[in-house]
Amino acid sequence: MENLSYPSQVEKWDVWEVSFRGPMDGNPFTDHHVTGVFTGKNESHQVDGFYDGDGVYRVRFMPSFEGTYSFCLHADFWEEEKKGQFVAGPAKKGNHGPVRVAGTYHFAYEDGTPYDSIGTTCYVWELQSDSQIEKTLQTLSEQPFNKMRFCLFPKHYDYNLHEPRCYPFEGTPMDSSVLTPDNFAAYTGKTDGNHWDLARPNPAFFRHVEKCLYALRERGIEADLILWHPYDRWGFSQMTREQDLFYLRYVVSRFSAFRHVWWSLANEYDLMPQKSIEDWECLATRLCRWDPYGHLRSIHNCLRFYDHSRPWITHCSIQRLDLYKSGEMTGEWRARYQKPVVLDEIAYEGNIQHGWGNISGEELTRRFWETACRGGYAGHGETYLSPDGMLWWSHGGTLHGDSPKRLAFLHRILCETPGLGLKPYPLSWDDVCAVPENSLIPPGQTQDYYLIYYSFMRPSFRDFHFDDDSVFDVRVIDTWEMTVEERGHKSGAFRVELPAKPYMAIQLRRVNKG
Amino acid sequence: MENLSYPSQVEKWDVWEVSFRGPMDGNPFTDHHVTGVFTGKNESHQVDGFYDGDGVYRVRFMPSFEGTYSFCLHADFWEEEKKGQFVAGPAKKGNHGPVRVAGTYHFAYEDGTPYDSIGTTCYVWELQSDSQIEKTLQTLSEQPFNKMRFCLFPKHYDYNLHEPRCYPFEGTPMDSSVLTPDNFAAYTGKTDGNHWDLARPNPAFFRHVEKCLYALRERGIEADLILWHPYDRWGFSQMTREQDLFYLRYVVSRFSAFRHVWWSLANEYDLMPQKSIEDWECLATRLCRWDPYGHLRSIHNCLRFYDHSRPWITHCSIQRLDLYKSGEMTGEWRARYQKPVVLDEIAYEGNIQHGWGNISGEELTRRFWETACRGGYAGHGETYLSPDGMLWWSHGGTLHGDSPKRLAFLHRILCETPGLGLKPYPLSWDDVCAVPENSLIPPGQTQDYYLIYYSFMRPSFRDFHFDDDSVFDVRVIDTWEMTVEERGHKSGAFRVELPAKPYMAIQLRRVNKG
Repeated sequence: MENLSYPSQVEKWDVWEVSFRGPMDGNPFTDHHVTGVFTGKNESHQVDGFYDGDGVYRVRFMPSFEGTYSFCLHADFWEEEKKGQFVAGPAKKGNHGPVRVAGTYHFAYEDGTPYDSIGTTCYVWELQSDSQIEKTLQTLSEQPFNKMRFCLFPKHYDYNLHEPRCYPFEGTPMDSSVLTPDNFAAYTGKTDGNHWDLARPNPAFFRHVEKCLYALRERGIEADLILWHPYDRWGFSQMTREQDLFYLRYVVSRFSAFRHVWWSLANEYDLMPQKSIEDWECLATRLCRWDPYGHLRSIHNCLRFYDHSRPWITHCSIQRLDLYKSGEMTGEWRARYQKPVVLDEIAYEGNIQHGWGNISGEELTRRFWETACRGGYAGHGETYLSPDGMLWWSHGGTLHGDSPKRLAFLHRILCETPGLGLKPYPLSWDDVCAVPENSLIPPGQTQDYYLIYYSFMRPSFRDFHFDDDSVFDVRVIDTWEMTVEERGHKSGAFRVELPAKPYMAIQLRRVNKG
Repeated sequence: MENLSYPSQVEKWDVWEVSFRGPMDGNPFTDHHVTGVFTGKNESHQVDGFYDGDGVYRVRFMPSFEGTYSFCLHADFWEEEKKGQFVAGPAKKGNHGPVRVAGTYHFAYEDGTPYDSIGTTCYVWELQSDSQIEKTLQTLSEQPFNKMRFCLFPKHYDYNLHEPRCYPFEGTPMDSSVLTPDNFAAYTGKTDGNHWDLARPNPAFFRHVEKCLYALRERGIEADLILWHPYDRWGFSQMTREQDLFYLRYVVSRFSAFRHVWWSLANEYDLMPQKSIEDWECLATRLCRWDPYGHLRSIHNCLRFYDHSRPWITHCSIQRLDLYKSGEMTGEWRARYQKPVVLDEIAYEGNIQHGWGNISGEELTRRFWETACRGGYAGHGETYLSPDGMLWWSHGGTLHGDSPKRLAFLHRILCETPGLGLKPYPLSWDDVCAVPENSLIPPGQTQDYYLIYYSFMRPSFRDFHFDDDSVFDVRVIDTWEMTVEERGHKSGAFRVELPAKPYMAIQLRRVNKG
């Protein structure tokens, strides 16, 4: 066993890894195959290992239970399997395990801790310079976001035309020195001049991404990893089925042991004419087979939804289809798909020319509240023009907007929700009312908890009337000013005075037992 | 002819009236019938006269052409018809005739002057005290509104529980002294205690309304007269078919000669369970028969649209069905009904508790622009709580809001539109673009005039690209600050810088011929 290197102890839900040396000649990425079978008291999984360059092979595993695990490794360049053991210890502070779907429409970490998603998007933050990445991480440390949505492949798009810091495959890109902001559209999807060996992943690229994954994990941020996307001049959106599968298997073998990875099969899948639904379904099937941990899986649309009712899809990852209504549709999508509704793109706070990137902090915050009070989860992004050309939505860096601290406030309110999350509740036609998802009290009967949001409306007061002897603790929430005002205990018919401003909410918590 | 009193000269489109004495015994309203046949060079109409109390009968006529008219009056209490003549002279300044549908989706006065409707609603302004009415008229003189929507019957509704100044029929109302803001719902639709003779209209009531009609006419304001509505404790919403027809015929005989009257058959027709679609269709059929001038006719919904495709309906009078989208639906409704789309209720600027009455001036103005740039017409209303209990939407009086002067500004921009009005134009997915309705230039080819609205979005710039040699006069409009900034002449590919604020618009006017 002298040539196996691995730790004998690992934290539950952490990455356990074994490495060993093997052949370097030919193409080790494709010529050889290594696997591991891991068996503990409560689970047994076979996983793929991967070649990490320089003659090093690795096999990773994430134990989901405490206790002793035995493993058995196989490599086609070995004559015999190699075996060993390690012990998975208790999860440490901040390690709650992978996020799972819980209560049909919500999420919880595997240890049962509710996960109220407040996501943001920085599409290629990890492919920027070290100093820019450092800035992003610094910003994330100060912000409420607990999910980061980003791409593995480099991005060719408005405001993001420079080359990435490194490439996922060996080779060289087209000459992009003639690319300008004005002619970039002509290069989109044109792949002449790229020279990639798509059978040779670039281990340095993946090691770098892993470093970024760890940095997110340290900050309690889930990694919503986009595997394919259409913003491309390198040709990675136009690989063959075989190349796609090879890439996918390599990615899964490297990343699936990271507890906080979510698989977003694609961003704007419907802008990739080279791929059919059959292609996506094939990739999804293999993803399900290769990922032994059942990480969350989704696929994100531009103009038309993927069929989110497909069994492999764990939650809806939605770009809103309407310029005006986004979070407001959450209830309909919940009803239709019977899955968590994550509105990853509902327009970004910013001031660029595009309608998807120039709404106000007020409007983005409003959309978050609309979504939350209808039992869904919205996503943040920021697109302010900046002298250094760095836009959060693409490059990460620094935030300039008004919404993030309001989203932190929203998160605080959501964390107060009893149970796993909220569901929409028909209180009045002109409010957005939520009650706990797990409320077993039938609609029409007095609930234990109401969160009522008034959106753009500006009532001077709202009247309530409860027929029973329920007593409520009444709080008035200014979602913009981020204040909570105690209004004492009320029962029966009562009026709650409001300041006739937009973005107000009322929280009613029953203090006696119904 | 000594007992006929009438003028020998009248202005075209003005009210010509003849009066004479007749029987006072029995019930002159129902016992007797007077009619007139009016014949000029270009038209001949039979109209109903009416009893105006105190033994006086009147017949009114609105000539639509200049020249000599002969008339022939018939009364069942005369042995012989009586004849006479008068001359219709040219319309004076400010008299453009009745408003008609023009260009399928728009309006014009009968003399061809385009009519860009900027309506407001004060449901029972005319049933308030003299001083309140005076205030309303003073306010209207200073405001842009060119249509006033109001009810003929008194209104029983939140914030409007007091008795009207007078009643449309002889009799006495229920005792309302026990009515309070808290118990008013219990009185809604309960009609016990009213004592009306529904076969005896109250001439003083109608003469008062006529005075108000004249006051609107003087100010160039169309009267969108609501004939039935559900906010009732007097029973006028629950009359029999026969009583309804009698009331309708009396109203038409009195008011149809007023050129600026529009017939709104009902407000929120669908909140009147006593009436079926068949009832409304019957009333509409008679209205068409009895009104010889073909005034505009509509019927307004609450929760579900009337079928606006019915032939008697001249234009859609819409209350928006969605809390979030109102003016944004204009294009769909144009396409569906092929008639002018008037959004009479898209929520009011104010701060009352109800979601239909507490949006901001910004939001109401935005909805007007959305509607206008999609080729429709929105309606204003104001519901600010006021120490004197007077809310514009119900009582008229004084305006407190931010939107009216912005609506005046919008009206000014609309008046610049070539032709009759605007139609929606597919320029970009993230703007609201209008071109003149009568543009004959196919979509995709360069138009002569674009009005492009950015709504809540906040672009820092927008890029344009025209393939031909068109030269445009470019103006940047701040619809909230009410400024117009000249940006000079542009052609080909050009960028228009914008201040990254909401509520901006760009106007492009082609200055060379395409």
